[in-house]
Amino acid sequence: MTDKRLLRGARTRRIALDKAVDIASLESLEGLSFGRLAAESGSSKAGLQTLFGSKESLQLATVDHARMLFNDFVTRPALAKPRGVQRVRALVERWIGYAEKPLFAGGCFQAANLAEFDSRPGPVRDALVRTQRAWIDLLSTELGRAVAQGEIAELDRDLVAFQIDAVLRAANTEFRLGHEGVGDWIRRSVEGLLVPRNRLRA
Amino acid sequence: MTDKRLLRGARTRRIALDKAVDIASLESLEGLSFGRLAAESGSSKAGLQTLFGSKESLQLATVDHARMLFNDFVTRPALAKPRGVQRVRALVERWIGYAEKPLFAGGCFQAANLAEFDSRPGPVRDALVRTQRAWIDLLSTELGRAVAQGEIAELDRDLVAFQIDAVLRAANTEFRLGHEGVGDWIRRSVEGLLVPRNRLRA
Repeated sequence: MTDKRLLRGARTRRIALDKAVDIASLESLEGLSFGRLAAESGSSKAGLQTLFGSKESLQLATVDHARMLFNDFVTRPALAKPRGVQRVRALVERWIGYAEKPLFAGGCFQAANLAEFDSRPGPVRDALVRTQRAWIDLLSTELGRAVAQGEIAELDRDLVAFQIDAVLRAANTEFRLGHEGVGDWIRRSVEGLLVPRNRLRA
Repeated sequence: MTDKRLLRGARTRRIALDKAVDIASLESLEGLSFGRLAAESGSSKAGLQTLFGSKESLQLATVDHARMLFNDFVTRPALAKPRGVQRVRALVERWIGYAEKPLFAGGCFQAANLAEFDSRPGPVRDALVRTQRAWIDLLSTELGRAVAQGEIAELDRDLVAFQIDAVLRAANTEFRLGHEGVGDWIRRSVEGLLVPRNRLRA
C-alpha cells in the first residue's frame, strides 16, 4: 500500500469512529450497524466492513475511540492539576463540561452503554467495564492522595469514588432531559462527600 | 365475547407482559419485538399484535406492567412502615431486594431503559420519566417528613432523593456485574445522607 492509501484509510476510520461514538451514545452500541454508520459517515458499507470486520470489532473500536476522546477532554486536563482534592474537583468539572455540552451527541458514553451491556457477558461488556474501572480507580487514587495530604478527612475511597460516579451518571440522565441545574447538584454532592479534615462530624 | 374468551385474553396478556419486562430489563425496550416476545412467551406473533397493536403500545404496556410489579414489591410494603426515616430505609431495603435477587431478569427496569431512552423524545420516554419522577417524589416526600418529624437534620430533600436514586442505579450495574457487597455500599451511602438532627457538622 502507498502512504496515500494508508492515510486515506486512517482518515476514513477516524471519521467513521467519530460518528460511531455519537450513534452509540444516542442509541447504544447495539444500535450501531454498518448500514447506519455508512449512511451517517458518508462511507460505503462494504468499505466499513473491510476496515472493521465484524460488528463486534466495530463496537470494540468505538469503545476505544470514546475512551480516547473522553481522556483527551476530561482526564488529561485534570491531570495537569495538583494531585489530591484539586484533581478530584477538576475531574468533576471537566466531566460536567463533557456531559452538559455534550461532547458526544447522546451525552455520557459509559452511562448509555453500561446500562445496556451490564447483563450481556462478552468482549464488549468487558471493554466497557475496564473503562469504568479505570475511571473509578482514578477517582479513588486521587481521593486517597487527598486524605494522605491532609486535605480531607479519612474516608472509604472506593466507596466515595463509587458515589461520585453514581451522581455523575444519574446527572447525565437529567442533562439529557433538559434539567440544566443539575451541574450544581453534582458540585454540591461532591463537596458533601469531601469533608474537610478539621470539620469532622461530632 | 364470552367471559371465557375475555379471561383467556387477560391471561395471555399477563404472561406476555411478565416476559416483556424481563426482556426489556435485559435488552431494553428497544430490543422488545413481537417476534421475540412470541418465541419466549409461547403465544403467536399475530395474537400478540392483535392484543397490543403497535410496538410502541407494547413498550408502553411493558413500562406500566414493570411499574405495577415494582410498586407491589418495593413501594407497597414500604408504605406499611411509619412515615419519615423508617419509610425511607424500608424503600431502600426493598429496592436492594428488588435489584439483588433480581425481580426482573436484567435487574432494575428504570436503570436499563432510562439510559437508553433519555435521548429519544416520545411517549415511551415520557412514560419512563413519569415513573422516575414518581419514585423520586416519593423519596423526597418521606425525607421531608423525616425532617419535619425531627428525625434528621435539615436537608435539600430533592437533592438527597436524587443522590439516593443515583446510588441505587449505579449499584444496579454492580449487582449485574456480580459485585455482591454493593448492598452494603447502598446502606452506608444512604446513612451518610441521613444526618441525625443532633449530630450536625461543626
